[in-house]
Formats: sequence, C-alpha cells, structure tokens
Amino acid sequence: MSDEQRRRRSGGRAGHAERAGVRAIDQMPWRIPLNPDRPIEPLDQDGVNAIHKGAMRVLSEIGIRFLNPEAVAIFKEAGCIVDGETVRMDEDFVMEMVRRAPPEFTITPRNPDRALPMGGKHIVFGNVSSPPNYWDLERGKVSGFMDGFRDFIKLTQYFNCIHFAGGYPVEPIDIHPSVRHLDCLYEKLTLTDKVTHAYALGKERIEDAMEMVRIAGGLSDEAFRATPRMFTNINSVSPLKHDFPMIDGLLRMARAGQAVVVTPFTLAGAMAPVTMAGAVSLSIAEALSAIALQQYVVPGSPSMIGTFTSNVDMKSGAPAFGTPEYMRATQMTGQLARFYGLPLRSSGVCAANVPDGQAMWETSNSLWAAMTSGTNLVYHAAGWLEGGLIASPEKFVMDCEVLQMLQRYMEPQVWATTPEDIAFDAVQEVGAEGHYFGCQHTQERYTSAFYAPIASDWRNFEAWKLDGAVWTAERAHRIAKAILADFQAPPMEDAIREELQAFVARRKEEGGAPTDF
Amino acid sequence: MSDEQRRRRSGGRAGHAERAGVRAIDQMPWRIPLNPDRPIEPLDQDGVNAIHKGAMRVLSEIGIRFLNPEAVAIFKEAGCIVDGETVRMDEDFVMEMVRRAPPEFTITPRNPDRALPMGGKHIVFGNVSSPPNYWDLERGKVSGFMDGFRDFIKLTQYFNCIHFAGGYPVEPIDIHPSVRHLDCLYEKLTLTDKVTHAYALGKERIEDAMEMVRIAGGLSDEAFRATPRMFTNINSVSPLKHDFPMIDGLLRMARAGQAVVVTPFTLAGAMAPVTMAGAVSLSIAEALSAIALQQYVVPGSPSMIGTFTSNVDMKSGAPAFGTPEYMRATQMTGQLARFYGLPLRSSGVCAANVPDGQAMWETSNSLWAAMTSGTNLVYHAAGWLEGGLIASPEKFVMDCEVLQMLQRYMEPQVWATTPEDIAFDAVQEVGAEGHYFGCQHTQERYTSAFYAPIASDWRNFEAWKLDGAVWTAERAHRIAKAILADFQAPPMEDAIREELQAFVARRKEEGGAPTDF
Repeated sequence: MSDEQRRRRSGGRAGHAERAGVRAIDQMPWRIPLNPDRPIEPLDQDGVNAIHKGAMRVLSEIGIRFLNPEAVAIFKEAGCIVDGETVRMDEDFVMEMVRRAPPEFTITPRNPDRALPMGGKHIVFGNVSSPPNYWDLERGKVSGFMDGFRDFIKLTQYFNCIHFAGGYPVEPIDIHPSVRHLDCLYEKLTLTDKVTHAYALGKERIEDAMEMVRIAGGLSDEAFRATPRMFTNINSVSPLKHDFPMIDGLLRMARAGQAVVVTPFTLAGAMAPVTMAGAVSLSIAEALSAIALQQYVVPGSPSMIGTFTSNVDMKSGAPAFGTPEYMRATQMTGQLARFYGLPLRSSGVCAANVPDGQAMWETSNSLWAAMTSGTNLVYHAAGWLEGGLIASPEKFVMDCEVLQMLQRYMEPQVWATTPEDIAFDAVQEVGAEGHYFGCQHTQERYTSAFYAPIASDWRNFEAWKLDGAVWTAERAHRIAKAILADFQAPPMEDAIREELQAFVARRKEEGGAPTDF
Repeated sequence: MSDEQRRRRSGGRAGHAERAGVRAIDQMPWRIPLNPDRPIEPLDQDGVNAIHKGAMRVLSEIGIRFLNPEAVAIFKEAGCIVDGETVRMDEDFVMEMVRRAPPEFTITPRNPDRALPMGGKHIVFGNVSSPPNYWDLERGKVSGFMDGFRDFIKLTQYFNCIHFAGGYPVEPIDIHPSVRHLDCLYEKLTLTDKVTHAYALGKERIEDAMEMVRIAGGLSDEAFRATPRMFTNINSVSPLKHDFPMIDGLLRMARAGQAVVVTPFTLAGAMAPVTMAGAVSLSIAEALSAIALQQYVVPGSPSMIGTFTSNVDMKSGAPAFGTPEYMRATQMTGQLARFYGLPLRSSGVCAANVPDGQAMWETSNSLWAAMTSGTNLVYHAAGWLEGGLIASPEKFVMDCEVLQMLQRYMEPQVWATTPEDIAFDAVQEVGAEGHYFGCQHTQERYTSAFYAPIASDWRNFEAWKLDGAVWTAERAHRIAKAILADFQAPPMEDAIREELQAFVARRKEEGGAPTDF
C-alpha cells in the first residue's frame, strides 16, 4: 500500500472518528487554528537586544555544562571552547547554527489528516503530560495507573481541540519502568491517530518509540526519516546544564529527521534569576545551546524553542503558574523566538490542586499568554493540576471548553464585515419594536452563528438548581465518563497492529530499557 | 476649607484606609493602571469603515426612537429629521457632535487622591452593579437586602484594585424604592471615598444623587459643576430606542458638567442582528445618537461609549458572556471607539450561577477582552454571577485576585531589561551548581519581585489537604468575612456627614422619588 493510498484511506478514518465523537457531546470539528492577531510585545527593540546579548554573554563567558561526552566532543570539533563538561560558544557560532533551523515545518502522524504545521501563525494544543498522580472527584488523589493513562489518551483522541498526544498524561506506575514505554506507546499509537511525543530517557526508549511510530504509520525506514513524524521535548537542568539522556535523545531524534523542542524549566528565584528578564535570558541561553548542537549535527533539522519560565512563591518556594510574571515571560520569549526565527512552545498550566476557580483563572492566564505570545505549540493544554503533579479528567474537559472557545475566537467568521454581516436589511426589518429571533437573517444563521458550549451551564439559576445545582467540576466529571463510555478507537489495519504487538513482545522479552531500580 | 486643603487632608485619609486594609489581607496598593499594550484589532481599516458606515446608515435611513420629548425637540432644532419620536440624523451631524467629546477627562470624587483619569491608556475597574439577588455559600440565593448592599460597598472600598463604586452592587429591596436611592447613596458616600455612579432613573433620583455627591465633597455648586465628580451609565432599549428617564438623566448630568457613559445592551440574535458586525454596528448607532445629543446640548461634555454586545444561547435564548463572540465584539467596539476618539467602557461578566470554574473562565475571557480592546473603564469587574442577576461576595474576592494579577501584569517592572534585570553577575555567581534563593541579587529583590496572591492556594496537594482541602469559593468566603469584620470606613468630617443626613431626612420627608408601585 502506497503512502498515497494510505492518505486516502486515513481520510475515512478521521471522518469516522469525528462521527463517533458526536455521540457524547457536540464538539467543534477538527481544524488547525491560525492565530490572526499581532502578538503582544512588552519589550522594545532594545529590550529584545538586551535579553539576546545577556544570553550570548552567558554562553560565551560562563558556558554551559553538557553531561554528555558525545555532545562535548561535537562542540570541540565545532571550535567551541571546552573545559571538562563546560562548553563556551560565541554569538557568531550560535547565531549561525540557529539560522539553520527551519522557521516552519510539519509533523505527520499515522493519519496524515492529523498532520500539524509548526511555526508561522499556527497554534496547536496538546494534553497534559507527565504528572505522577491522578485525581478525580471519585478517587481523590492516587498514583498514576494504566487505566487512568488509557482514559486520558482516549480523551486526547476524542477532543478535536486537542491536536497532539504529548508525554504520558499520567505516569502509569503499575507498569514496570523497563517496559512502561512499550505499553504506553502501544496505547498511544492504537488509541490515537494524532501526532505523538516520545520521551528522551535513554537510547532504548527513544529508539523504541521511533520504531513504533514508524510501524504504526506503515512506513519504511526511509519514509519515516524523510519528514518529521513525531517529536520529543527535552528540558535543560537549570541552571546551565544539559543531562545525558535528554541530549542523547535530541541527537538520535535529529539524526532520524524528527522534531525536537528544547524547554528549559527556569523558575525565577529558584533555578533562575529573580528578575524575569534574567530568567528569560538564562532560558534562552540554555535552549539555544542545545539547538545549536542539533543544527550543527543535522543542519536544517526541525527545532522549537520552549518556554517554561515562571516564578516561585517567595514565601514557600512553591512554583506558581499563570502569574503576571509567567505571562510576561512567555510574551518576552515569544519576541525572542521571532528574533531567532524559531517556532515557540509554551503551556496551559496552574498551581491549583483541584479543578476550581483558581485552576481556571490560572489556566486562562497561561492560555492567554500562549495566545498573545505567538506560541505555536501549547503543551499541557488540558488536564493539568498542582503544578504538573496531578492529571485530572474533570480539568481535561473544563480546559477543552476553554480551548474550544479560544479556537472559535480565532475564526475570522466571528468578526466578518460583509454587507450580510452588517445586516442593514435585518435592522430595517426589525426596526425599533421587533425581535431578532424570528427574522430571516437570524433563521439563516442561528445554528452556526455562535459558539456552543460543552461543559458550561448557561441556564438561569432556578433551572440550574432544579437540575441538581451541579457545579462545573461535577458536570465535567459526568462528561468525561460519557465520552469514555462511548469511546471508539480510530481504525488501524490488523497487520499494523500485529506488527506493533510483535515489536512490543520482542522488546519485552529482551528486557525493555535498563532501569536504575 | 479650600479644595487645596481638602486635597492635603484627603491624602492622609487614603493612607489610613490602606493601612486598615493590611489587617485582613496583604493586597496591592492603590494605583491607576496604564495599559502598555497595543490593543488587539481583528478588523482592518475596511472593516472599521464598514461598521461605521453601517451605523451611520441606520441613523440616517432608519432612525432611532427617543421616548423623550425634550430630546426630540432638541434634535429638531439641530436640523435632524423628526417623525413622531423617530429621529434620523446624518453622518455629518453625528460626526461633528462626536468630535466635540473630549478624548480624555478626569472624574474627581470626595477624596481627590482617588481621582480617575478616563481615556488614553488608562484602565480602571469597578464593582458589580445592579443585580437583584445576593448569593453566598451560607445563604444561597436570596433577594437583595441592605446589609448585603453595605457589605459589597465595603468590599468596593476595601480593595485597592477596585477604582470606583458603580451602580448598586445589589438592589436592596428591603428599602422602599421611593427612598432607596437616598439610603444607598448615603451608604456609598460615607463607606467609600471613590468615584461613584448614579442611576438615571428619573429627575428626583439623579438630582438627589448629584446634590449628595456635592455635599459629600464639601463643594459649592460652582465647584461641583466645574469638573466631573461622578458619572452615570445609560442603556438604550435595543433595538433602536432610548427611553425617557435615561435620556433625562443624560441631559441633567451633562448640563451639570458630569460624565455620561452610553452602553447599548445588544445581545446578538435577540435585540440585535445575529452577526457580531451587525450587533456592534447597531450598538454604535444607538450609542452615538445619545452622545450626539449630549454634545449638541453641552459641547465638550465628558462622554464615554460602552459595549455590552454579546450573544444568546441559540438553544435557549439565554444570554451568554465571555464567549468568543463577546470577546471579538468588545475588541471591534474598541477599534470604533478609537476611530471616534471616545473613551471605552466594557465589563467583567459571566453566565455562571456560582463562583466555580465556569465563572472564572468566562470572567477571565471578558476581562482579557477588556485588556485587549483598549477599554478604559471596566464595569462589573468584581462580584458578578448569573448574567448579572446575582452578586456574590465570594466571586468579588476571586475577581479581585484576577484584577490584581492583571494590574500587576501592566507594571513595566515585570519586563524591565536593565543590566540589573538581565542579572549576568548573578548567573555567573550561581553557575551550574548553585541555587538562586540564596544569592545577593535575589535577596535584594524577593519581597517585591513577584505578585503575592490573596485567594490562591499555591501549596502542594498534601499541605492543602491537611489544612482542610478548601476549594477556592470557600477560601474566598472566609476572606470576605475577614475583610468585613475588620472594615474601617474612610474618614468624613462630622459637618459633612450631618449635612448629608439632613439632606436625606428632608428628602424622605418630601416623599423621595415617585414610584409606580
């Protein structure tokens, strides 16, 4: 079966998945949002330059530690100044390397209809990634488990406003870490047909993930490597370190033609300076050093710059999210990303422990920061609680309501000004005494004129009370259950599923990945 | 006592009020935010022009009904085409009148330190206004009552992020409507020293309000009329009508030198076209017709244009707020307001019935619409629920947390890029192994580097659970109680208080205002 045949057949699959979705809730169709608005830019040109020069000075005068001998050897070969594990690189080198990165690229998963453009005006959203714990209204907080993992993967597939399957939405600790990546990738690749992420946690895990994505796509080695099919996200160990497995994963993914996001986790006042400009500058330095490595090794390889700069609570040291400082840091990083010509990743995050008011104002703030910063890829956009330590299905559904609204907000139809939109004739027809419900202009448009909510209750208080006075989190709980009860996996050819199963079985027999346990 | 003396003494009062505030929570100081960001502008120049021309065509070809004979006579005198109560006015007339309105002005309340600049880059926030019902976690939903009214007025005064006292935060139906305005204004003017609003609900009410603001400010008639001391907000009766008392109030306020906000309530699909451009165009027509009247009668009188354009749920007809359509309509109206050179009013609103997740994502959306539209005055910014039918103290506190964050977000210190902010020396000092908590650069800044929350709980799940697992609404409930228990009214000279009391007593003896009851 050729790629072209597969493409046509996959169209049918996506159509089926959408129809299946309608059974639980009436959600928006799959689409790739284009962000039409000019980003908000707090910095003037001098400000952008000050942060850039600050980052360059950190890299050239202080240097950054690469706890990966291969990377150190590569930097040495490239003419950087190496002292043990510390690498110093000058602005000319960094900028020459960064300029090699493509400003835009596309990641194509097993269903080509789910291909995601990265960069430019595109903005795509993914599920919460990596919490060790699960929380819902029935269970309370429990350690991550495979059934919970599976539920989040189903929600990830179900919601059209979720464009990619990020890291594990919850860590299933009931699966042994040596084989966890095999089971998790198998679930992700069979329960979703969207772009997937793989962890850079050692040679075996990242190589297994690439092989499984290749098999799931029915691709030859050559076809897999020809264009990005998946991505990894690596974090620096702030301040000023890149660890072995992350850099190893970056090199393996880049050499296989896959996409890499580099996201320093720079909490101002803890792992980074207490000033936001200082924290952003450090984050830029850490990110660009890894991207420079990637671009030296594989010129033109797909890179993204990530931001996870926020602040801590100076009373307790606890991380805070969706704060004023977080929002401006995200916008500042966006300005720098455009200065470097790199696509940008940010997040939908909060510090709240349960899906209540605080959770939603913090998450809204972080999502508005994404929207106004020129972000292209929004990680953790649905389901995140407790600073990333908890994944919650209620929060997932609530976030999807917000994401749907933001995606509708980006559709030009909302602010169209054709004569039909200005509606002079309707205004004349209704005059000063009539009502617009009944007029022809309304009747022709009312089914699609406005955003239709999924978890919001717009009834008045009395109707809402008669129906049980159910608060948002409980409504979201019920919606998640209904979606999961109705879930249908996207189709996959039997031969491909069997090949995936055989691969997983063989790798388990071989012992999977080494662990420290 | 001269105005100058009063100004100096009032400074001491404001200082006292701030100190008093510290006892319940550690809130941000009083300040007038400047919005540094370029507004988000969905419309191109053609789009702005299309909406403008649509509004002009409505006014010139269809006309608008003024249910106020004085207004009709004035329009006739001005050369407009009058047919019964319907007034048609052409673009030249409307634009000539609108150009008379000042782009910026200042409203000065009894405490001159609380003076509010309107227009330009300024953005100020006020309490929820006009709900008939009160809701809190203890009482549930009950009809508005005077003790509840007083509590909201105290919260309005207490929070520094609330800049003005809008309409009644809840309607105290336990006070007879003939004298309600006297009691309510007395409470507002003695419990707050901030800019106050007065309802345009008949000659007696608006004249009494102006007189009481004059007395509370210790002003002569001449001093009161010399500069804006208060404002009213009038709503059109969409579609295409202005009623008697609102226009009467507009004329009385304008002739007394006071500020007028004109806010059509155009729900797309109900009182306005189902298309947002049509609804905004109708709203602009209705607003400008009243502003034209005001500017014809009192050239240069302080006017503001308000937007309350949202959409209904097309399934139920219920009004929706904070929707994608609401956000874009607010931004579109902002573009038109700048086209006309008028300051803009919008709102912090939601459809949710209780202070839960939905309440906060809807309110966040409407506040972000205010922030990105160039809004100068944000009505209903704290305490609003159920589409304006409920005022809630919990929601008030939760909204103030969001408002504080937005106000902090506007402070240039957050994105400053001086060499001290870039913090190269600190990065060098900490290097790759240290931590930023301990370094000198952090120690010098940590007390004021970051936003400090009031209702957010940033502790981890276990600490939060040990402390009772309290969700946001319940925390806000406790905070409101603590603030009210500690509340201290701003100082007022005995002589002024007695003059206010005497005025209220006399007007009550005279029967107050006529009612239809």
